[in-house]
Amino acid sequence: MEQGMMLVISGPSGVGKGTLAKRLMEEKGFAFSVSCTTRAPRPMEVEGKDYYFITEEEFARKEKAGEFLETALVHKHHYGTPLAPAREAIVAGRDLLLDIDPQGGMLVMQKVPEAVTVFLLPPSWEELEERLRRRGTESEEQIQRRLHNAKREVDYLPHYRYVLVNDELDSAYETLAAIVTAEKHNTVRYRPEFLKR
Amino acid sequence: MEQGMMLVISGPSGVGKGTLAKRLMEEKGFAFSVSCTTRAPRPMEVEGKDYYFITEEEFARKEKAGEFLETALVHKHHYGTPLAPAREAIVAGRDLLLDIDPQGGMLVMQKVPEAVTVFLLPPSWEELEERLRRRGTESEEQIQRRLHNAKREVDYLPHYRYVLVNDELDSAYETLAAIVTAEKHNTVRYRPEFLKR
Repeated sequence: MEQGMMLVISGPSGVGKGTLAKRLMEEKGFAFSVSCTTRAPRPMEVEGKDYYFITEEEFARKEKAGEFLETALVHKHHYGTPLAPAREAIVAGRDLLLDIDPQGGMLVMQKVPEAVTVFLLPPSWEELEERLRRRGTESEEQIQRRLHNAKREVDYLPHYRYVLVNDELDSAYETLAAIVTAEKHNTVRYRPEFLKR
Repeated sequence: MEQGMMLVISGPSGVGKGTLAKRLMEEKGFAFSVSCTTRAPRPMEVEGKDYYFITEEEFARKEKAGEFLETALVHKHHYGTPLAPAREAIVAGRDLLLDIDPQGGMLVMQKVPEAVTVFLLPPSWEELEERLRRRGTESEEQIQRRLHNAKREVDYLPHYRYVLVNDELDSAYETLAAIVTAEKHNTVRYRPEFLKR
């Protein structure tokens, strides 16, 4: 049984990670790693689908018990990827998508060097601001904080293997699909049948 | 000006490197690095297009003068990639394809760590033998020597980044094209315009 691929997608809020993730799940059969977070649900977010919304105390307990593959602190909220389901998916040969922030991405790179890492960018900062405003779920102060954070996060970009500008959804998805195809043929995870002895 | 991509394709004789290389040149605008060799031309091979056919003395002189990016000794013949045209293509932003053997591939990986390396395999050893025989340009002894060599060369496979089985030409080409697309978005060579300051 071949192991699944762990695909990490990072990038600023509003850049379109969710939409690309959804297509990867629908068209490429990726499982989605549902993170735990201590932040409050946004409108439309579903417990157990978008996130597991847990308390600070519960988060601290899980972290101490080693139940997270990675954790990050963003905008004063904790985020963590549950380790057990991630491991189970990969071992069972299922490809797994992690939509996590660059702090967490760096931790995954250390622990899972064969993870495929993609940094998603908006076409411009102005366009990102526009998208965040259109989403209409956050205050002006929150939008400015996200923008500021996004510009700082770009410092992590060189640590990622791939960078993708989401200027047009279909073409961004096609590039992402090409990355998945290429990485399926990465020698770390692909061994042609007839060479197995 | 962005630098071009150096793409190394290795794999046994008869596996179809030439055909895939031709499509990459026609459809993706790759330049082809013409190697020097001390072996005799095969029927249909063209001087300056397939190889520069040179003498042992000329090869030794060039090697000593540092004119090769890599060299290899295969079936008692010398092969070498001329350094100057390779460097010029890459610096000018031109993608460059190197069809070289794994000895040379290993040297390129050391000197050009950002080179993209692809190992091409036949669907089976039986199929490779069949293809070599169909080519009809070599003696039975040469065919057996090539097969023997091919099986040894597979030891280099884990050093390559990608592995591709050429069972069906169109699907092998599509995978190769996906690898090229993915690698165009590798953070070592791609920097979105708006992040350049």
